[in-house]
Amino acid sequence: TIADVLVEASNRAAILKGKKVLITAGPTEEKIDPVRVLTNHSSGKMGFELAAAANELGAEVTLISGPVTLETPVGVHRIDVISSEDMYRAVMNQYVHHDIVIKTAAVSDYTPSVSYDQKVKKTDGPLLLELKRTKDILQALGEQKTHQYLVGFAAETNDVLAYGKKKLENKQLDMVVINDISQPNQGFNADTNAVHILTKTGKEINIPLKSKTEIAQDLLSMIAKEVDRS
Amino acid sequence: TIADVLVEASNRAAILKGKKVLITAGPTEEKIDPVRVLTNHSSGKMGFELAAAANELGAEVTLISGPVTLETPVGVHRIDVISSEDMYRAVMNQYVHHDIVIKTAAVSDYTPSVSYDQKVKKTDGPLLLELKRTKDILQALGEQKTHQYLVGFAAETNDVLAYGKKKLENKQLDMVVINDISQPNQGFNADTNAVHILTKTGKEINIPLKSKTEIAQDLLSMIAKEVDRS
Repeated sequence: TIADVLVEASNRAAILKGKKVLITAGPTEEKIDPVRVLTNHSSGKMGFELAAAANELGAEVTLISGPVTLETPVGVHRIDVISSEDMYRAVMNQYVHHDIVIKTAAVSDYTPSVSYDQKVKKTDGPLLLELKRTKDILQALGEQKTHQYLVGFAAETNDVLAYGKKKLENKQLDMVVINDISQPNQGFNADTNAVHILTKTGKEINIPLKSKTEIAQDLLSMIAKEVDRS
Repeated sequence: TIADVLVEASNRAAILKGKKVLITAGPTEEKIDPVRVLTNHSSGKMGFELAAAANELGAEVTLISGPVTLETPVGVHRIDVISSEDMYRAVMNQYVHHDIVIKTAAVSDYTPSVSYDQKVKKTDGPLLLELKRTKDILQALGEQKTHQYLVGFAAETNDVLAYGKKKLENKQLDMVVINDISQPNQGFNADTNAVHILTKTGKEINIPLKSKTEIAQDLLSMIAKEVDRS
């Protein structure tokens, strides 16, 4: 009956009610000098879709985003950051206040050892740019986890499953979402994605190519179920 | 009289009629691996404003743009490129067919010596990224100049005038447009700009802070006058 459908829709709509969800999205920009930056191709689309979907499912959503050109989803609290260091601070500040944390941001794992305040003049010949490791946000989240359900993303071009499994364990994640960005229509700038999901509880789920909007809904349904059972 | 105003407007509208104008805009992206890139903060706004204004002034406009999120101005032929090498090839292909060439693009002057097809895995400790010089497009344009009026941009943070003057001479430009990007509301991501213009013929013109749309109109009027007299 129509009443059943409405009840079902309303149940589905409420699966994240009362949950505080923290999502990170986009790239980071690491400053070399006032002109040059080290960054990556993350568009932020997957994270923004997740934020919109989580809000629709009743969650209270905070979205921490690197520099992207996307509109903030309705009802979502957005915090903008630039560098990996900014991102680290913002995420760590927010962490304790959230129940579900989904880290889709492609945070640079290297940043220039020295950042110049004036534009570096070019010289003849090659230049050696020394990069240092940035703080590993996912590692810190895993270590400082109390009650949070922690979801990481792994965007890889080779040995994607093995690398994803290692990430799940090493970073003490509850779920890892793996995508093979060497495939067409998957990953950074695409509107579609195909992902492979591994959970700490041993589940393996494959979501074939579909829109990032649908992937976001599927992922959040799975997360909601896992959270309910833990 | 109204007729005078209309004639004047129509004269102004026609000052670049019959001229083919080539404009480059935006940043370039230099690939480190499938995820990481070296780039800069150029928004492309100044170049796109110049393209729109040149089209309104009757010119036939080709706009070669790096990755930006701007709409192509009406009536402008746009060619998209990613890397400095792409930009070099596109500009050199187009050069001979154009009368006025304005290079606003912030082309990376360094690119990774090696570009990896697979995502480079992070390791502990610092990483040395070797960068090599890219081809100097403005230098090549200066050297291969036949009939073209060549305009370069200099975005600097210190000693801006001295550096701009050196650029005018070294690159055999007809005009250099200097802006001090250490100042607020000037340069890369701003909608306004303030520039200092030097010409090969010894002119020095200062345009104080105004919108990039107005700066574009001012610049093209000056260029049209200079071209007419040469």
